Amino acid sequence: MKKIEPKTLSGFMELNPEDQILFDEMLNIIKNTYKSYGYWSIDTPIIEYSEVLLAKAGGETEKQIYRFNKGDNDLSLRFDLTVPLAKYVALKYNELLFPFKRYQIGKVFRGERPQKGRFREFYQCDIDVIGDNELSLKYDAEIIYIIYDIFNKLDIGKFNIKISNRKIITGFLKSLNIENNNIDVLRIVDKISKIGTDKTKKMLYEIINDKTKVDKIINLINIKGNINEVISKLNNLNINEDIYQTGVLELSEVINDLKQMKLEEKCYSIDLSITRGLDYYTSTVYETILIDYPEIGSICSGGRYDDLATFYTDKKLPGVGASIGLTRLFNQLKEAKIINNTECRNADVMILPMGITDYSLVYVTSNLLRSNGYSVSIPYNKEKFKNKIKYASRMNAKYSIFIGEDEVKEGMVTIKNMETRNQVKLSLEEILDYMSKENN
Amino acid sequence: MKKIEPKTLSGFMELNPEDQILFDEMLNIIKNTYKSYGYWSIDTPIIEYSEVLLAKAGGETEKQIYRFNKGDNDLSLRFDLTVPLAKYVALKYNELLFPFKRYQIGKVFRGERPQKGRFREFYQCDIDVIGDNELSLKYDAEIIYIIYDIFNKLDIGKFNIKISNRKIITGFLKSLNIENNNIDVLRIVDKISKIGTDKTKKMLYEIINDKTKVDKIINLINIKGNINEVISKLNNLNINEDIYQTGVLELSEVINDLKQMKLEEKCYSIDLSITRGLDYYTSTVYETILIDYPEIGSICSGGRYDDLATFYTDKKLPGVGASIGLTRLFNQLKEAKIINNTECRNADVMILPMGITDYSLVYVTSNLLRSNGYSVSIPYNKEKFKNKIKYASRMNAKYSIFIGEDEVKEGMVTIKNMETRNQVKLSLEEILDYMSKENN
Repeated sequence: MKKIEPKTLSGFMELNPEDQILFDEMLNIIKNTYKSYGYWSIDTPIIEYSEVLLAKAGGETEKQIYRFNKGDNDLSLRFDLTVPLAKYVALKYNELLFPFKRYQIGKVFRGERPQKGRFREFYQCDIDVIGDNELSLKYDAEIIYIIYDIFNKLDIGKFNIKISNRKIITGFLKSLNIENNNIDVLRIVDKISKIGTDKTKKMLYEIINDKTKVDKIINLINIKGNINEVISKLNNLNINEDIYQTGVLELSEVINDLKQMKLEEKCYSIDLSITRGLDYYTSTVYETILIDYPEIGSICSGGRYDDLATFYTDKKLPGVGASIGLTRLFNQLKEAKIINNTECRNADVMILPMGITDYSLVYVTSNLLRSNGYSVSIPYNKEKFKNKIKYASRMNAKYSIFIGEDEVKEGMVTIKNMETRNQVKLSLEEILDYMSKENN
Repeated sequence: MKKIEPKTLSGFMELNPEDQILFDEMLNIIKNTYKSYGYWSIDTPIIEYSEVLLAKAGGETEKQIYRFNKGDNDLSLRFDLTVPLAKYVALKYNELLFPFKRYQIGKVFRGERPQKGRFREFYQCDIDVIGDNELSLKYDAEIIYIIYDIFNKLDIGKFNIKISNRKIITGFLKSLNIENNNIDVLRIVDKISKIGTDKTKKMLYEIINDKTKVDKIINLINIKGNINEVISKLNNLNINEDIYQTGVLELSEVINDLKQMKLEEKCYSIDLSITRGLDYYTSTVYETILIDYPEIGSICSGGRYDDLATFYTDKKLPGVGASIGLTRLFNQLKEAKIINNTECRNADVMILPMGITDYSLVYVTSNLLRSNGYSVSIPYNKEKFKNKIKYASRMNAKYSIFIGEDEVKEGMVTIKNMETRNQVKLSLEEILDYMSKENN
C-alpha cells in the first residue's frame, strides 16, 4: 500500500511526551494560580463568525487570520482570546456577575510568515477583570500580583515586572503640544530597550522635528531609580496637564497597593518606556522580563483598557488583564536551557510483575496506591527483566515495586526507591506509611 | 457607532461560568484518572495537512470536515484524536517507548447538519495504548478498568460496561458461510438495543435471506446471564471456527483479569450485540451505558484494533483504547438533570473589606490562605454591604471573612461559615487551624 508521509505543519508545536509533561506542569501552575484568586474559567469556540472576530481588526490581523467558508457561513479561527471575551461578555451581559473575573487558556491561530520562535498555533493564558461602567484600580494591582505569584511558582529565574501608566506619557506629549503624534511616539518609545537611546532619539526626531522636545521625552522615559524616587521625580516635573497628573496618581495608587500586598521590591519597577505601543491599553500597562535573559523580551504583559466590547454593545465595560503566550515562552525557555525535562516523571510508581500468572496482588497494590493519590504504571509486555528495568527508568518513576512468586506467596511486595536505591520488603499495610514518611 | 451582533455559531458549546466549573470538574476527573495509570499526555495541532488527516477517511468524514486553503497549503481541522495519534506515533516512532500509553483531551470538529444534542466542535477525551508489533491483552482489561474508575468518580449514576469481542460474531458468521456480509451484519446487530429484536431480524433477513441463519444470529447476540454463564454458553455452542474460538478465549482472558482487578460485577456484562459497527476495531469492543438513562446511549466506547497507523508506516502497531465525548455527554447529563451547577464553587473564601483604606490585613490574610491551598476572592468594587453579600452568595464561597476598622485595629478577622452560619473572630494564627478542623 502507498504510504502517506506523516508530517506536522511548520509553526505548529507538537512536543515529545517528556516535554509535554513540562509544558503541562507550567500550564497547570498558571491555571491553578488564576483559579486561586477566584477567577471564573470560560471556554469559547475556536471557530467564530468572521464578522464577529473581525469587528475591530484590520491590517496584519486580517492578513494572518485563518478564514474560510463552510456552507453559507464565513468563518474564522480565533486569533486571540480578547475578542472572544468581548463577544462573551456582550452576549451574556445579563447573566454575568460584575466585576466579571475570568481566565481562559486555549489555542489561538495566526498564519504568520514562518520564522524562528514564531508559532501559527499557540496557547494564550489570559486573565482579565471586566467592570460594569466602573472598575476599582485595586484590580490593576491584583493582576500584577498574580503575575508575580505565577513567575515565582514557575521558578524560571529572576524577573522584573515593569509598570507604567500610558496617561503619563500621553499627558506629557500634550504638554509639549505634540499629542497628534501620540500613537507614533508610543510605538517608538516602546522599543527603546531593544533599539537603544540614540536610535530612539533619531526616530523621534523624524516625526517631531524638534530637538528640545525629543530630549524632554527621552529624559522622561529614562527616569530611573527606586519606586519612591521615580514617583517623586514625576511629581517634581510640575507638568500642568490633567491627564499627566491622573496618570501619576493612578500609578501611585497601584504602587501603594503592591506595597501593601508585600510584592517584593526586587520583582517590579516603574519603567516609563513601557507603552504597549499598538495595543488598546489606556492607563496602567506592564511587561515582565527575565532579568538574566532580557533578549527573550516580555514574557507576560497587559494593562487596563477603557472599554472592552465597544464593537458589540453600548455598555461601558472597562477592564484590566494580562496574557502569557505559553507556547512561545516554553520554546524560548527550552532553547535557553532554563527548563529541561530530565526531572519529568510519568508515574510515581512502576509495578513490575515478575513471571507470575495470578495478578491479584499486582492489582490490589496498584488500586491501593492510586486511591491514595499515587500514579502507578504497570508494564504488561512480556519483556525480559532487563528491558522492564529500562522501561521503568525511562518512565522515571520514584519507586519500583517488584512482585514475583515469593511476594505472591508471602503477600508482601518488594519496593525500591529509585533515587536512594534502598530496597525493602513490606506488607500492604506498611507500604503507605513507608512512602508517606519517605516523602516528608 | 454601528454595533455588530455578538453571536456564537450554532453547534458550538459556550457555557455560562457556573456550568463551566461543572464541565471543568468532569474534565479534570477524566484527565487525572488517565494520568494516575501512568499514561503520557500528548497534544497535537488542531490544523493538519488535509492529505494526512484524510489518509484513511472517506464518505461522511470528507463531507463533514472543515477544510480550506491557506497560502499553498490544503489544510483541515482534526475530526477525531485517533488519526492525529496515528500520525504522531508514525512520525515519532523512534523517540517513543512502547507500549506507548497516551491520553489526549482536546477539541475536534465535524461540520454535521445541526440537530439537537449534536455539536460541531466538541471535546474528546481519548486514552490508548499502542504496542510495537504486539500488545498484551491485559491492556484491554486495564482500559476497561479505567472506564470503571472514571464513571465511579464522576458519580453520575449506575452504569454498565458492555463488553464483547468482534471475533466471536465474525467467526460465527463464517461458520454459517455468510462472512461476505460481515460488515453489514455487524452494523445491523449493533443497533438491536435501539431498534429491537423484530426489526433487527427483518433487516438481517433482507441481506441474508435465510430464516434459520438469522435466528441463529439473533440467538447468539441475545445470549444473556452472568459472566460465567455467558462464557460457558459460548463454549457450548461448539462452533468449530478458529476465529470464533480465539474470540471466546480472548474475551475469557479479559474477563479473568477484570475479576482479579475486583471490578464490581454489577458494573459490567458481556453483550454480544456490541460490535461498534463501522469502526476499525478487530477484537475486544465495549460500550458504557447509564442504567437509569439507556436513551442517552453509549457514554464511553472503544476497543482493540490490529493496526493503528497502516496509512503512514509499515510498522505493525496494534492498540486498544477508549473515548469519552465529553461535550455531548455533559449536555445530555444537564438536560436529564443528572448534574446541576448549584453546588459549584468559584472560590473557597470571599474576603469582604468593610470601609477600610489600609488593605494590609486583607492582603496578609488572602496570601496566607492561598499559600495554604484555599482559593480566595476579594471584591474591590465600592458597593454597599448588601450588594457585597449578594456577590459573595453568587460566588458560593464556603467562608466569608469580614475585615473592617475593628478587625484592622485588633489584628483579627471575622470569619463566617456560609453553610452553618457560624461566625467567629480569630487571629491569623488561629484561622488555618479553624478551617482545617471544619473541613475534616
